[in-house]
Amino acid sequence: MRATVINAPYEIRVEDVPDPVVRQPTDVVVRVLRACICGSDLWPYRGEVANKPRPGQRIGHEFLGVVAEVGSEVTGFTVGDLAVAPFMYSDGVCAYCREGLQTSCVHGGGWGGFDHDGGQGEAVRVPHADGTLVKLPAEAVSDDRMLASFLTLSDVMGTGHHAAVGADVRTGGTVAVVGDGAVGLCGVLAAKRLGAEQIIILGRHTVRTDIARSFGATDVVAQRGDEAVEAVRELTKGQGAHSVIEAVGTEQSMSTALRITRPGGSVGYVGAPHGSGDGVDLRHLFDRNIGLRGGIAPVRQYLPELLADVVSGAIDPSPVFDLSIGLDEVADGYRAMNDRTALKVLIAF
Amino acid sequence: MRATVINAPYEIRVEDVPDPVVRQPTDVVVRVLRACICGSDLWPYRGEVANKPRPGQRIGHEFLGVVAEVGSEVTGFTVGDLAVAPFMYSDGVCAYCREGLQTSCVHGGGWGGFDHDGGQGEAVRVPHADGTLVKLPAEAVSDDRMLASFLTLSDVMGTGHHAAVGADVRTGGTVAVVGDGAVGLCGVLAAKRLGAEQIIILGRHTVRTDIARSFGATDVVAQRGDEAVEAVRELTKGQGAHSVIEAVGTEQSMSTALRITRPGGSVGYVGAPHGSGDGVDLRHLFDRNIGLRGGIAPVRQYLPELLADVVSGAIDPSPVFDLSIGLDEVADGYRAMNDRTALKVLIAF
Repeated sequence: MRATVINAPYEIRVEDVPDPVVRQPTDVVVRVLRACICGSDLWPYRGEVANKPRPGQRIGHEFLGVVAEVGSEVTGFTVGDLAVAPFMYSDGVCAYCREGLQTSCVHGGGWGGFDHDGGQGEAVRVPHADGTLVKLPAEAVSDDRMLASFLTLSDVMGTGHHAAVGADVRTGGTVAVVGDGAVGLCGVLAAKRLGAEQIIILGRHTVRTDIARSFGATDVVAQRGDEAVEAVRELTKGQGAHSVIEAVGTEQSMSTALRITRPGGSVGYVGAPHGSGDGVDLRHLFDRNIGLRGGIAPVRQYLPELLADVVSGAIDPSPVFDLSIGLDEVADGYRAMNDRTALKVLIAF
Repeated sequence: MRATVINAPYEIRVEDVPDPVVRQPTDVVVRVLRACICGSDLWPYRGEVANKPRPGQRIGHEFLGVVAEVGSEVTGFTVGDLAVAPFMYSDGVCAYCREGLQTSCVHGGGWGGFDHDGGQGEAVRVPHADGTLVKLPAEAVSDDRMLASFLTLSDVMGTGHHAAVGADVRTGGTVAVVGDGAVGLCGVLAAKRLGAEQIIILGRHTVRTDIARSFGATDVVAQRGDEAVEAVRELTKGQGAHSVIEAVGTEQSMSTALRITRPGGSVGYVGAPHGSGDGVDLRHLFDRNIGLRGGIAPVRQYLPELLADVVSGAIDPSPVFDLSIGLDEVADGYRAMNDRTALKVLIAF
């Protein structure tokens, strides 16, 4: 089959790779219909990771598709089922999975690399299929918009929701979102869904903040640094926001997030830390009793509830995709996201 | 009157100071019956603060006593009432106070310094008395043990409870406590009160860990650093504790606290940060979805519920006091706590 390979920083190619097959009785093979490129894929793309990409390295962790082969011990799926995968696989039965922290599953792991298929390819072997995959309504298979919305549940929408949960978003509360990438925008949508009354997005790209407004943002702060902090304070009676979503992961974004949080409030952070630890001033948190919770999102936990809301039409995260390409154009897709000419790129097979 | 003054690092004296009087109609004056020395008083004592102590500086923030004079607008107290003060005063009516975050009160502040009486003196002018003070049962005035228990509610017990709340202690959960000072011991008691099943205290002083056991600790870990982390893992099925109380505030204590927390768990920190920010490895927290919440404890919020449990006998924090002195011996008290020959010193008037 054909799949995306990152042989070195900036060297994204589509290559022939072995067709996946069921290896364990708990596996299924999914023929991919939709995949996408994540902001976090840009870290290896730019070589900004401890382990630089090496020849043959597979990539992509967001996909949905049709079940093509089923292991003998799989009970929840049959050939032909439409299903979405979260960005990590998990066994569904360990203590962490039962508690909803599938990202800490004792048998779990990630897609791509050298031991697993990546999501940006024609097919994927899915370990622990019963614990990992979530079935989608079959009739959606011909509905482009619905497939795009479902695809966001593999990572970006679940991650935005995780940030909102970590930030303790409550009905009637004030929320600020640092970061106008796709995760930040999904954080806006998640905050709206959880009942926030005021939602402030920090961002300077009108295309993105317009999506934020359509997702429920009530205010846009285009300033940065001290000016952004001051602007948020003015919008929140001088107090700051009850809940702040940090969706970038840099020192400046974390520092801004802490400074715009109301005393007693919470920061929910989901930007993979790239310097953000340096932005954590514990004395600032201590004096104001500001909580910090977040991390790699257990999107598998959130999938059923978010899926129900996508199906009902209560939420539609699909506008985060502003560019749709075929697999052969995947290198263009990476370039577009890296150049920030695209917000988030969908790959249709 | 006579009151404790810290004129410079290590220079604790009892001096004559002006008698407090009602200045604002919302003030009362409390004649102090019991006060104590806090672990945090040792920071200025050692000069380990940004603003070094200067001549005439008053000190002490934990006290209870009898109301001696009442301002014209005070409605909740009359002369002769027995009352305890939290370690900060607060107006009781601002947005933060109504939410239970009295430490962020817009009219609040601390005891001592140059503008307020300190708790370690014969009397204290209490601003915003209706918002600040909590009435105690009058009959306790002659009950030494009960007065000692009530006194812990001014800071140490409420702070231990705040750590347990920040660490999200739940019924049946596993708790680890880093720090065997009086706050850590109260954290044990608070965790027990909140229903924790397993409570591990990290400490090497038998006198202290014996108190921890009497407060509900099920396990004692005397090792430090890597060995302590390994010991806690062994006691928790290799996973770590759901809830970890950090009651020291140093880099090592925070680092240990994070490393012994179970994925998905929480660290509740109340040790005033003295390097602990350097112990926060955000990537470690991120990968495991460990939450961090704590800060300066709004003990005023917790006072009514903890007071009810002291009165009923459900909890008795008084054993944290292992030395009782008179006001004239206060310098000896500081020395004993600084030399760690005393755990916590009570001053009886």
